[in-house]
Amino acid sequence: MTFNFNNSKNVFLRKEDKSNKGSLDEKIINLLNKINSKENYFTTSSCSGRIVLIIDEEKKMPGLILFRTHNKISLNQLKKEINKILTKKINNKIIYFKQEPCILIVSCWDKEKQWQLFNKAKNNGWKKSGILSLDKKFLIELMSTENISFPVCNMGRNLVNDEFLKIVIKKANYNLERGWEKIKRLEGLIEKV
Amino acid sequence: MTFNFNNSKNVFLRKEDKSNKGSLDEKIINLLNKINSKENYFTTSSCSGRIVLIIDEEKKMPGLILFRTHNKISLNQLKKEINKILTKKINNKIIYFKQEPCILIVSCWDKEKQWQLFNKAKNNGWKKSGILSLDKKFLIELMSTENISFPVCNMGRNLVNDEFLKIVIKKANYNLERGWEKIKRLEGLIEKV
Repeated sequence: MTFNFNNSKNVFLRKEDKSNKGSLDEKIINLLNKINSKENYFTTSSCSGRIVLIIDEEKKMPGLILFRTHNKISLNQLKKEINKILTKKINNKIIYFKQEPCILIVSCWDKEKQWQLFNKAKNNGWKKSGILSLDKKFLIELMSTENISFPVCNMGRNLVNDEFLKIVIKKANYNLERGWEKIKRLEGLIEKV
Repeated sequence: MTFNFNNSKNVFLRKEDKSNKGSLDEKIINLLNKINSKENYFTTSSCSGRIVLIIDEEKKMPGLILFRTHNKISLNQLKKEINKILTKKINNKIIYFKQEPCILIVSCWDKEKQWQLFNKAKNNGWKKSGILSLDKKFLIELMSTENISFPVCNMGRNLVNDEFLKIVIKKANYNLERGWEKIKRLEGLIEKV
């Protein structure tokens, strides 16, 4: 087991370096580094929370996400992105606005270490967390709850007005901030697992 | 352990009988009965998926849900419910429309039985499932993914038009149906766990 865990950890940490180069998801990097510095844990994927404009399709596939940010957004910025999509005239498609919560997948050394981190996260705002495997990788998914999801364009037509978007943006930005607070709080708790 | 599991099972099944009396969530009752008829499992809470109109508050508390259904909804029905809320003039409050996926919490006899049901569900559409405890109750949360969430009224004003609502209703009803299919599929798989 020793070999497998450490080997997998090395493989994943190398992957992570690569993916971070192209990414601006800086809000979660300190937490990832803290977790990966502990010998009993390593992270396999993560997101600090995000806002996306995405084509509504049954199956996930590349190219569905038309806009993505891990930062707070302004009304002007969102309207600019919606207008870009409207001028592209992606026909017969419904485009969704989604604000998704922070998420983190961690592989743990054993059942005890798995339970410690899971429990710590679950009791500190990562309410939608769950254990994903009971042996080998001892995976846990840590996730927060905040989310928004609605159709924003249909057949090249805007479906929502500025008053609606202002309220959505205020909430989405607030949700992102709450996620960042949870990331910070978990950073502080990692020392103790 | 024998005594505790069976005792807890009896306590929860009695509770369930009570809560079902006032409920119309009939789409999940067959699945609950099938699970509870197996000696190694009992359900502690469930929802077949729902549509709600809810006051946006930081903390959960009684009275926030202004409308709730486990059935598909029509444009007329939804507009009637929104109008009821608008005439109530719940000032300074934002009201959210939420379509939430089916969810099921199950207590299992042991780790093996826990993993069997979790794995079966996870591989059959209950994608957001997770294990919640590694001993005693051996709890699992089985959950599907479909959801919609957006502000519908603010300060007694309607924020969305009929075109928007028609698209949302079509998707929300489709999501509920997908959840019911997953419930049916899991019913068929329970025999084998």
